[in-house]
Amino acid sequence: MTSTRREPRLKVAVLGATGAVGQRFIDLLSSHPWFEVARLAASERSAGKRYQDACRWRLGTPVPAEIATEIVQGMEPDGEMDLAFSALGASVATEIEMAWANAGVPVFSNARSYRLEPDVPLLIPEINPEHLGLIEKQRKFRELPGRGFIVTNANCSTTVLAMALAPLERIFGLRRLSVVTLQAISGAGYSGLPSMEILGNVIPFIAGEEEKMEEETQKILGKFVDGAVQPASMTVSAQVNRVPVFDGHTESVSFETTRPASLDEIRDALATFRGEPQELDLPSAPARPVVVLNGPDRPQPMLDLYLENAMATIVGRLRPCPVLNFKMTLLGHNTVRGAAGGSILNAELAMARGLFGDDL
Amino acid sequence: MTSTRREPRLKVAVLGATGAVGQRFIDLLSSHPWFEVARLAASERSAGKRYQDACRWRLGTPVPAEIATEIVQGMEPDGEMDLAFSALGASVATEIEMAWANAGVPVFSNARSYRLEPDVPLLIPEINPEHLGLIEKQRKFRELPGRGFIVTNANCSTTVLAMALAPLERIFGLRRLSVVTLQAISGAGYSGLPSMEILGNVIPFIAGEEEKMEEETQKILGKFVDGAVQPASMTVSAQVNRVPVFDGHTESVSFETTRPASLDEIRDALATFRGEPQELDLPSAPARPVVVLNGPDRPQPMLDLYLENAMATIVGRLRPCPVLNFKMTLLGHNTVRGAAGGSILNAELAMARGLFGDDL
Amino acid sequence: MTSTRREPRLKVAVLGATGAVGQRFIDLLSSHPWFEVARLAASERSAGKRYQDACRWRLGTPVPAEIATEIVQGMEPDGEMDLAFSALGASVATEIEMAWANAGVPVFSNARSYRLEPDVPLLIPEINPEHLGLIEKQRKFRELPGRGFIVTNANCSTTVLAMALAPLERIFGLRRLSVVTLQAISGAGYSGLPSMEILGNVIPFIAGEEEKMEEETQKILGKFVDGAVQPASMTVSAQVNRVPVFDGHTESVSFETTRPASLDEIRDALATFRGEPQELDLPSAPARPVVVLNGPDRPQPMLDLYLENAMATIVGRLRPCPVLNFKMTLLGHNTVRGAAGGSILNAELAMARGLFGDDL
Amino acid sequence: MTSTRREPRLKVAVLGATGAVGQRFIDLLSSHPWFEVARLAASERSAGKRYQDACRWRLGTPVPAEIATEIVQGMEPDGEMDLAFSALGASVATEIEMAWANAGVPVFSNARSYRLEPDVPLLIPEINPEHLGLIEKQRKFRELPGRGFIVTNANCSTTVLAMALAPLERIFGLRRLSVVTLQAISGAGYSGLPSMEILGNVIPFIAGEEEKMEEETQKILGKFVDGAVQPASMTVSAQVNRVPVFDGHTESVSFETTRPASLDEIRDALATFRGEPQELDLPSAPARPVVVLNGPDRPQPMLDLYLENAMATIVGRLRPCPVLNFKMTLLGHNTVRGAAGGSILNAELAMARGLFGDDL
Repeated sequence: MTSTRREPRLKVAVLGATGAVGQRFIDLLSSHPWFEVARLAASERSAGKRYQDACRWRLGTPVPAEIATEIVQGMEPDGEMDLAFSALGASVATEIEMAWANAGVPVFSNARSYRLEPDVPLLIPEINPEHLGLIEKQRKFRELPGRGFIVTNANCSTTVLAMALAPLERIFGLRRLSVVTLQAISGAGYSGLPSMEILGNVIPFIAGEEEKMEEETQKILGKFVDGAVQPASMTVSAQVNRVPVFDGHTESVSFETTRPASLDEIRDALATFRGEPQELDLPSAPARPVVVLNGPDRPQPMLDLYLENAMATIVGRLRPCPVLNFKMTLLGHNTVRGAAGGSILNAELAMARGLFGDDL
Repeated sequence: MTSTRREPRLKVAVLGATGAVGQRFIDLLSSHPWFEVARLAASERSAGKRYQDACRWRLGTPVPAEIATEIVQGMEPDGEMDLAFSALGASVATEIEMAWANAGVPVFSNARSYRLEPDVPLLIPEINPEHLGLIEKQRKFRELPGRGFIVTNANCSTTVLAMALAPLERIFGLRRLSVVTLQAISGAGYSGLPSMEILGNVIPFIAGEEEKMEEETQKILGKFVDGAVQPASMTVSAQVNRVPVFDGHTESVSFETTRPASLDEIRDALATFRGEPQELDLPSAPARPVVVLNGPDRPQPMLDLYLENAMATIVGRLRPCPVLNFKMTLLGHNTVRGAAGGSILNAELAMARGLFGDDL
Repeated sequence: MTSTRREPRLKVAVLGATGAVGQRFIDLLSSHPWFEVARLAASERSAGKRYQDACRWRLGTPVPAEIATEIVQGMEPDGEMDLAFSALGASVATEIEMAWANAGVPVFSNARSYRLEPDVPLLIPEINPEHLGLIEKQRKFRELPGRGFIVTNANCSTTVLAMALAPLERIFGLRRLSVVTLQAISGAGYSGLPSMEILGNVIPFIAGEEEKMEEETQKILGKFVDGAVQPASMTVSAQVNRVPVFDGHTESVSFETTRPASLDEIRDALATFRGEPQELDLPSAPARPVVVLNGPDRPQPMLDLYLENAMATIVGRLRPCPVLNFKMTLLGHNTVRGAAGGSILNAELAMARGLFGDDL
Repeated sequence: MTSTRREPRLKVAVLGATGAVGQRFIDLLSSHPWFEVARLAASERSAGKRYQDACRWRLGTPVPAEIATEIVQGMEPDGEMDLAFSALGASVATEIEMAWANAGVPVFSNARSYRLEPDVPLLIPEINPEHLGLIEKQRKFRELPGRGFIVTNANCSTTVLAMALAPLERIFGLRRLSVVTLQAISGAGYSGLPSMEILGNVIPFIAGEEEKMEEETQKILGKFVDGAVQPASMTVSAQVNRVPVFDGHTESVSFETTRPASLDEIRDALATFRGEPQELDLPSAPARPVVVLNGPDRPQPMLDLYLENAMATIVGRLRPCPVLNFKMTLLGHNTVRGAAGGSILNAELAMARGLFGDDL
């Protein structure tokens, strides 16, 4: 994070602060130059406890000292906050996130609840920053007070995929693609997956995940025209698998471009891809949103996951495909770029674009 | 194995008896009604030792008592054997297998050395028993004495795939298909994969494996016409991954049929598939070569691998595909049906067809 | 199981039939010569469903066909049952098991609730069959009607340990011992351990486990005198660890005998140990309750767990210890001998001793 | 590393630079304030290649840019080097390390070859810095020219143990102790452990490891009297196990002190332990060489391994032991403090004590 530190920093609430994604938020925000965690919100079971007692911290780094002894609060909206990050599950997110927006707080959500709503940006800053234009419509339509709005990030496996597709769609057009995932257990949440189910096993199913990948990808890559998002027209087919890997989703992709392209042109398009976060030098922006590796057996979660601070999609094994045009292997960090880190970058873009109001 | 025991049983050599696949041969043959292990052949490092000392036995069952103290021999051909199973790696298989064939011994090989030779059957008995017709040409062309010939089985991941494709190709025709594998570590052989490479990791590459899957599938599903195999015309695209699973390859497949088919017709074609091993009631034949599961999260290696004694391909998650016509998940046992068990079934078919000569 | 089949078989209830240990009961009882599962009892969440729908079956073998479509019942006692096996957790076992005993049904429990009660046998049939003498006192003291009583088996890691200690205590006396465990995840129950906690990790703690090992061992090895059990006097120190192994507890033990013993005498005492189950040839009795291996790197869960049908304690690496007298490594199956299989053997012993009444 | 950067930095050779420990050296030295890697020495198979091609880099961080394209050299001594770190296996270390010392180069070794030689320091700077006094005798006895000498570090599991024992021995005396290890796979070296042996398994044996732990501990804790090391008199009994954990050795220890001690005194002795590296503020010295955790289920490799930059021994679960006096669980990083990091700290101490000569 090369950007200048801003003082005073914006006061941030983390909704669902004790879970797997909530912990990533705490970790990534602990040294953030613009944002400061000012409220830890969690379920009633945790409220009233110190954070370090309420939470089974699972990251290799210690709980940030300034957070460890903070008291966890309940979920009720706090209009004093400048913005809120939501790590809530969809079952509770629908209601709680809207309550915070209705309290005038911008909400950056990881939940699927509002992703496909026509007035809610499904934002990946390198790809579709102009989708933030939906906020105006959203505020009007939902009669949100003050600065209140909701911006969502994509599902973790969709994010990994869309980052690599964006430069290809932009330059060559994409007609159709097939993706098979090998997803890490941390994507299922802290207690989402019993060890007896996955140790030494593969589970070829994650509820709702294939539908998300197919629909969200089209919205993310869609055009913003006349105040609305027109979904991209490429056909997406997803097959998902859970594997005994801790962090990092691997994806085997084959795709067909609309216009002819050589292997070198594809590689070049991926490697040189840059977007608004890079132009604006946002604090959490990776220098290279897509990294292309040449090793014959790369990328691998164990070796390549933390390139670009885990904020990039890593591409390897780019080669021709006899069925569609090309094949490649993708890797991305499901709880950093695919969750907490993605939301933080979303908020940084909103901040840089002045969406929190003139006085902030 | 419901078939009658045959006495005396045929004398069998196992080439490469101490490795991972060799151990499976020993285990599966220990109670075989027709075959009896009479010679354990291995490299010079092992020759002269008792089998239990030469071999790091990795199966959950004990070394068969009658084998444990047998002395391991070298690789030189022994014309006294009625047939030989080869678990050799390709680097040594080329020479040694042909030496045994030249000594008049039928060889059933797991190595890739001869799989794509035009005069060598690449045999999966349920699919292409008529490819055994190549043997006559092979004997003439290579001037093999006595009963000598070579029959190969397919690569482990190809076998799992081809079993599910065969009924579809037969009934609806296949135009093209895309397969992504999640392969078990036992496929790499006993010391083929350091633990530091795969524990908690995915490796998106196995040398030569994608090419094998693409070429072997076409040969296996090819037609036997005028004494030669005409490769099937469907296009196959394979992407392979190694995952931290002990036994069992999972495959995510999407495919396009030549003629229209409904989901029910596809399911029915898979579930009712039977071949010559089932008609002949061969000792190692699974009752159902393809098993279709309906659970939303099946098949899984931990739960479904040993259906049909690990000799079937298990199919689940059959559903429409927006890119090609259909998607499905396959599972098969890479060292049983995909290696030793497949070779044994090949030998049973050859035996039943009288290819070992009239006097056996 | 070599014993004669008994017809009609006794009607058995399994309490907590859908969990990890419950599934082992179902699996082991499906081919039992004396017992027949006649009632599947589980929590209200499962009651009313078919067994295969209520239960996430995790064993590699299929759900027994005769059980799969049986309707799961609630926990209320059914006096029609000849006996009940309990796979309940301690939190509910205390009440429910006593309710069944009060309905006149003999209960064989895996829960810790009654293990240390002075009138309840903590039974390992090879070690302390005479502890069944407590039942008379129990019936009187608790005013249990008909055939009702409760017999418990030991904690899984205690069972593995006690089996190896019994012959040593009997012949040489044991003064003190230290045991460190490496325990499998299946011991934590089906959803007891999130995958994010244990994949690639060690957890040096299991609640209450060390206390159980220390106290239960003394009771199991205690003498039955004047109608009561006098705990054995050896001192036991336990340290427990959870490791990412599916089934099978490994234990590193050092111990000091009361009377002098040579390494050969110790080995001989272990290898020749036999008890009443072996004399009576009970259906589930292992031929050798303790198996001694000589390989320098054995026992290992992957290789040795299923010796003696997983009903024995496997001992290896027996050697002198510079601190106490001897060291050794133990291995046992935590959900077979250490849970369901142990309870079944307990019931077989009770049956053979006529404790179910004359008319059964 | 808070210490001032020294310019020019000392020129360092890494012997065995491409293996698992060699990679840790490269990684840890890449930002070292005093030392600079100037020669990459490896076997003939690697010599002549660029480092990134010769080495299968397994760390999560990239190969340091300044090293990646350096050409790997052979093993012959280079007297131009100021010092050498050896990551060699014992089979080759004996000869090669002495050759470098004979070329006048101080060698800091990870190999076991010279650890127990009476004239070679087995050094852990917090514990026995005075053992460096052996160097004078070594130089004379072995007629080493110039600055040449050999200093060894301890076996990885010994290091973890000795760090926690040192303050106890110093203050209370230690009479005897028993240690059971759960060791990570990286301790076996890059290709030392096939995945088929350890995935989902425990191996209760590592060749020579128990002997090393017992003997090395006594030497490390020994007194330096009259120019020689008198081994400490406590009795040590070790039992070792390999578990499927990537990095980090866990150890379950029970011990008996010579003088009475309360639990609080023990905890205090551990937590306040400091040594010469802390006084001298050596670049790689942990602020706390021993960290005491209070959580009931700590330490865990996944959570606590990187405290103090992986240079400390982490202690948890301190409690009374009914057999010896106390029990505790230890955790340490086997390839950082237990290997490369330990050697680097050794070299820092030697540097600070002026053992490289006046002109450096």
